[in-house]
Amino acid sequence: MARIPVAVVGATGLAGQQFLAALDGHPAFELAALAASPRSAGKAYGDAIRDEKGASRWFAEGRVPDAFASLPVQDAAAFDPRAVSLVFSAVDGDAARELEAIWARTTPVISTASAFRMEPDVPLVIPPVNPDHVELLEEQRRRRGWKGFVAPIPNCTTTGLAVTLAALEPAFGVEAVLMTSLQAVSGAGRSPGVGALDVVDNVVPFIPREEEKVESETRKILGLLEGGEIRAHPMGLSCTCTRVSVLDGHTESVSVRLSRRASPAAVAEAMRAFRAPADVEALPTAPARFLEVHDDPYRPQPRLDREAGGGMTTAVGRIRPDPVLGGAKYVLVSHNTKMGAAKGAILLAELVHARGLV
Amino acid sequence: MARIPVAVVGATGLAGQQFLAALDGHPAFELAALAASPRSAGKAYGDAIRDEKGASRWFAEGRVPDAFASLPVQDAAAFDPRAVSLVFSAVDGDAARELEAIWARTTPVISTASAFRMEPDVPLVIPPVNPDHVELLEEQRRRRGWKGFVAPIPNCTTTGLAVTLAALEPAFGVEAVLMTSLQAVSGAGRSPGVGALDVVDNVVPFIPREEEKVESETRKILGLLEGGEIRAHPMGLSCTCTRVSVLDGHTESVSVRLSRRASPAAVAEAMRAFRAPADVEALPTAPARFLEVHDDPYRPQPRLDREAGGGMTTAVGRIRPDPVLGGAKYVLVSHNTKMGAAKGAILLAELVHARGLV
Amino acid sequence: MARIPVAVVGATGLAGQQFLAALDGHPAFELAALAASPRSAGKAYGDAIRDEKGASRWFAEGRVPDAFASLPVQDAAAFDPRAVSLVFSAVDGDAARELEAIWARTTPVISTASAFRMEPDVPLVIPPVNPDHVELLEEQRRRRGWKGFVAPIPNCTTTGLAVTLAALEPAFGVEAVLMTSLQAVSGAGRSPGVGALDVVDNVVPFIPREEEKVESETRKILGLLEGGEIRAHPMGLSCTCTRVSVLDGHTESVSVRLSRRASPAAVAEAMRAFRAPADVEALPTAPARFLEVHDDPYRPQPRLDREAGGGMTTAVGRIRPDPVLGGAKYVLVSHNTKMGAAKGAILLAELVHARGLV
Amino acid sequence: MARIPVAVVGATGLAGQQFLAALDGHPAFELAALAASPRSAGKAYGDAIRDEKGASRWFAEGRVPDAFASLPVQDAAAFDPRAVSLVFSAVDGDAARELEAIWARTTPVISTASAFRMEPDVPLVIPPVNPDHVELLEEQRRRRGWKGFVAPIPNCTTTGLAVTLAALEPAFGVEAVLMTSLQAVSGAGRSPGVGALDVVDNVVPFIPREEEKVESETRKILGLLEGGEIRAHPMGLSCTCTRVSVLDGHTESVSVRLSRRASPAAVAEAMRAFRAPADVEALPTAPARFLEVHDDPYRPQPRLDREAGGGMTTAVGRIRPDPVLGGAKYVLVSHNTKMGAAKGAILLAELVHARGLV
Repeated sequence: MARIPVAVVGATGLAGQQFLAALDGHPAFELAALAASPRSAGKAYGDAIRDEKGASRWFAEGRVPDAFASLPVQDAAAFDPRAVSLVFSAVDGDAARELEAIWARTTPVISTASAFRMEPDVPLVIPPVNPDHVELLEEQRRRRGWKGFVAPIPNCTTTGLAVTLAALEPAFGVEAVLMTSLQAVSGAGRSPGVGALDVVDNVVPFIPREEEKVESETRKILGLLEGGEIRAHPMGLSCTCTRVSVLDGHTESVSVRLSRRASPAAVAEAMRAFRAPADVEALPTAPARFLEVHDDPYRPQPRLDREAGGGMTTAVGRIRPDPVLGGAKYVLVSHNTKMGAAKGAILLAELVHARGLV
Repeated sequence: MARIPVAVVGATGLAGQQFLAALDGHPAFELAALAASPRSAGKAYGDAIRDEKGASRWFAEGRVPDAFASLPVQDAAAFDPRAVSLVFSAVDGDAARELEAIWARTTPVISTASAFRMEPDVPLVIPPVNPDHVELLEEQRRRRGWKGFVAPIPNCTTTGLAVTLAALEPAFGVEAVLMTSLQAVSGAGRSPGVGALDVVDNVVPFIPREEEKVESETRKILGLLEGGEIRAHPMGLSCTCTRVSVLDGHTESVSVRLSRRASPAAVAEAMRAFRAPADVEALPTAPARFLEVHDDPYRPQPRLDREAGGGMTTAVGRIRPDPVLGGAKYVLVSHNTKMGAAKGAILLAELVHARGLV
Repeated sequence: MARIPVAVVGATGLAGQQFLAALDGHPAFELAALAASPRSAGKAYGDAIRDEKGASRWFAEGRVPDAFASLPVQDAAAFDPRAVSLVFSAVDGDAARELEAIWARTTPVISTASAFRMEPDVPLVIPPVNPDHVELLEEQRRRRGWKGFVAPIPNCTTTGLAVTLAALEPAFGVEAVLMTSLQAVSGAGRSPGVGALDVVDNVVPFIPREEEKVESETRKILGLLEGGEIRAHPMGLSCTCTRVSVLDGHTESVSVRLSRRASPAAVAEAMRAFRAPADVEALPTAPARFLEVHDDPYRPQPRLDREAGGGMTTAVGRIRPDPVLGGAKYVLVSHNTKMGAAKGAILLAELVHARGLV
Repeated sequence: MARIPVAVVGATGLAGQQFLAALDGHPAFELAALAASPRSAGKAYGDAIRDEKGASRWFAEGRVPDAFASLPVQDAAAFDPRAVSLVFSAVDGDAARELEAIWARTTPVISTASAFRMEPDVPLVIPPVNPDHVELLEEQRRRRGWKGFVAPIPNCTTTGLAVTLAALEPAFGVEAVLMTSLQAVSGAGRSPGVGALDVVDNVVPFIPREEEKVESETRKILGLLEGGEIRAHPMGLSCTCTRVSVLDGHTESVSVRLSRRASPAAVAEAMRAFRAPADVEALPTAPARFLEVHDDPYRPQPRLDREAGGGMTTAVGRIRPDPVLGGAKYVLVSHNTKMGAAKGAILLAELVHARGLV
């Protein structure tokens, strides 16, 4: 079967590099175009990621895929998406609002940027959690008169939390969530990213705008799509987001108030039983299990568990009763640059493709 | 004024070394005797902390105080406390139960061990929080027929939490607390301590028995001493304790349900206004303020704030409403081997001395 | 073809775990027996690596291979090697001298221990460097009257250095080497291993006995086997070994005095052209290249380059003239627990098997 | 005695902040003016170092000195130095060449920038090493027609090395030096500084232009001032500079070829006997000893030894023979932002002041 031509815009940054790594050898998507800032425009990709000393600044695993190193990088601001069937956007917040809207007039855009996440006609989809929200894309097209659409993925800190809550909601009813995150440095990108001065022998107790994003995004993702709009889930949410000296993999300490009594064993059972719809489980980038439960109290650990399921599985452990919220508490680890960013966006692209939206 | 002769038992470990560092030049206590395991017995202290290569394994700041390097180390199991007026005990859990009870027959014991913390006739005192609980020591003496007593300090993770709650309790009433800690590696001591393999690029989501200690100790410390016994505070408590790649200084993300409405500004004000009784504030090891509030949202950070007040001040920041608990949330940093261990024990010794119990 | 039954002794430690990870699915070796200390004896392997809390202490990648979790662990001191054709020994230094000699009476032993490395009739083989030294094993058998033999691999810090020198020796002649290592924490094993207190925000400038090992082992490996004995290479060697906050992958800064003029380009060319004998390159665990040269001055980096060739490739970069030694200098990265330990030992086992010694 | 009014230009960066921390309470210098980039100009210093969230980005110890927080920040490009008697410049390389030359027309400039370090009429002075080189400043004034002068300090990696070589040169004669550094992240400043992605679980084997600087600066510092010019020391030098996960304190592994035989004991003795001229030892910022020798083979370590002498003492250990160079080898630790930057610049200012050049 012929593969679908796709583009990556914002291709030279950390998220863009993760896109390239994940698209290398992809069965359905063929990387046909690359774009980035004017500084990179006109160069071959392999040259565009070199620094002033000629050194390659490739931060994903392995090396730049050979097939991509010679692809020319276009200027994102002048990029014409009509040559491809799908655009993966990893551009930064401010530019995203303007550029993604332009591209979406003609072409579907899957984005890691936050610009459109909270728009009423924009679904915020994690395929194993709320795949049916992709239907809102039709509504978006209609309202905006676009041939394409913008489908963003959530913040990397939202993803693991939403996956675990999706396993609890049907069985027990989620009423409120308290979460403290211990986030990896790769979540902040590369330029400038988190400084070594901030995390050597240290914790930074604040990540600008992160807590608000997790709170509003989680409610939207677990909300109900009805009559062309999403009613946010009414759960209470209170987050504290911190940065620690970990490379990849966000750790989250979560307490949940549940509508129905749930012993730790019942919570573990619900998480172990969690399944995505069959068509989601069949997507090329889907792991064998989106949720994995550890009995070992020393797990999950980011270094040991972030790569589970190719970085697409959320690992959970330390499931205990929470006497204060009257529900359960647990610790999760989710890979912030895989399930929480580029590979998560590719999974979403696979879903919209499988459901005939591309 | 003549200084009081004191002993440090368990002198060669990490906590013992911190005791020596803190007793160097102390105005009221004179280090007169040292004891440790049989392996060290009979050696001069400076030799006892050398490894098999002859290298000094001193982990506190600076160097071994000159005056102490030549002190002979006695065998803890055979140590006779009658030569001193006070024993600082940093022995490990199992030995503590047996040995501290023996020493206490004749001599007051201030201990960092957990053995006696939850005994009904044993006060668990943080001088700025519950100094009057030292009165229970008289009851302890009477009941046990001891001339001395055992006065333990709490777990290092309890201390900062209890200090902040003590500032909130009188003004707003503490009903419930949810806490996630990001603990430093020095809290686990040296032998074996936390392995580098566990914390490089990693978080460990479990510290055995830590959460239970923090929960029960905090209730006892904030409890009411009445009729010769302590009624534990009825607050709900739910803790998750993790280990991160930080050398010193425990960071804690805290959410509190309060009996009365408390805006973040009011919470900050109550914390800023927090004062210990005058005689506690006058103790030699007391800092200018036991609590310090930061407006900067990036603070407190363990590396920047752990040494505030000579390691005796709890730093608080990020005070915000907690919509789930209906109270407030904040982040604190407390120095685990200073206020939370040896220097905290010395502060307690200063208190029992000032109040005439030694 | 039937696989050869092998045993791993010292199976529960860090090196032992790496053996199991590397033997999982091995085409030629079938893990048939496991042994460890008396504490583990009698348990299933999966249980033997649990700690007192029941938590699995598995430190290699992924999980304990399913096929091995239920294998019973024998007492190493009572282990009878005759049930297998080959023993992989990861026992600690002191026990190794005694036990490996006992096993070798009947069965070939491939060892990561240092006990026998410098014995005159014991070859110290890195397959791409000095594969022909395995012939000395026949001499060893004859002299000692053993049916088996002991074939140790070198110290993990020696390996990468020796591979690079092997590429330079034939072309330019190695006269002297100055090396400073920046070693990973996993090189010290787990019990107790390197403490977090030692490497957070720190460098430890000393690793007991490491420098002497690298110096003598490198001379032996690059020496000449003639008349049943190895004449050590006469090169001068001066090493300084340090420990840094890196998980896996030793970095080494190397300066070499060469007999013949060698421009950086010529040195790079010699390294790029480096090939092992055809039968070594065909071994199952051999990487496509044993040496890889980077032009990027920011490479090699342990985190980015340690996994090259499945952890079996030595990465080299920063090749420059050394004006002081009159030769060349460069930086290398070599995986200390793969090429430098368990996988390196398996590669050696594959070699002795391919050459008919097992 | 009235204190001399001084200015700090580049006051908001990491080096600038270190200047302020070191000038707080200085007995001879009074901070009278501050300047920085246009972005900060016109603000009070305390506001100029806040980020867009209003958070104070102060990275030196403690807090912004109260006396300095309200000082207005001027635009460095428009700064008029005539209001002060001395300018401390921490401006970045390119601007330094232009601006320092302008300021020096009227006012002495002590600089941490590299712009003028290798100019023939510019001395490169480390007070305990080559204090007499300050005489070249008179020559500089004459040649350039300046009333002031530019006196730079060397690169932070040069300093510790030069101090140790200065102790060896008179006794043994230094012929050649091989050095590998393990440098702290603070050496690269804050904006952008070293990224956490680069040093978590990693080593970076390259620091642009660093090795060349250390090599040429060391020769100049140990050179001979004669007839109005400095003849560089003819020693051979070969450096490899790497970055490790350490906050402050550069560690260097050094091998030296000496003209005369020198046992490790003799080398240690020469280092212990090292003294600066009496007027240098009497400077306010001078430590009790500029060199400290450890017998403990595990020392020096950056975290334990960087603060020796208030960060002004170079710590040395592991002194051994170097069989390849036929001299000695050792490991040193030197504080890169104290002796190697701001405090070192203040020490130099104290020297030029004491010698009547200001």
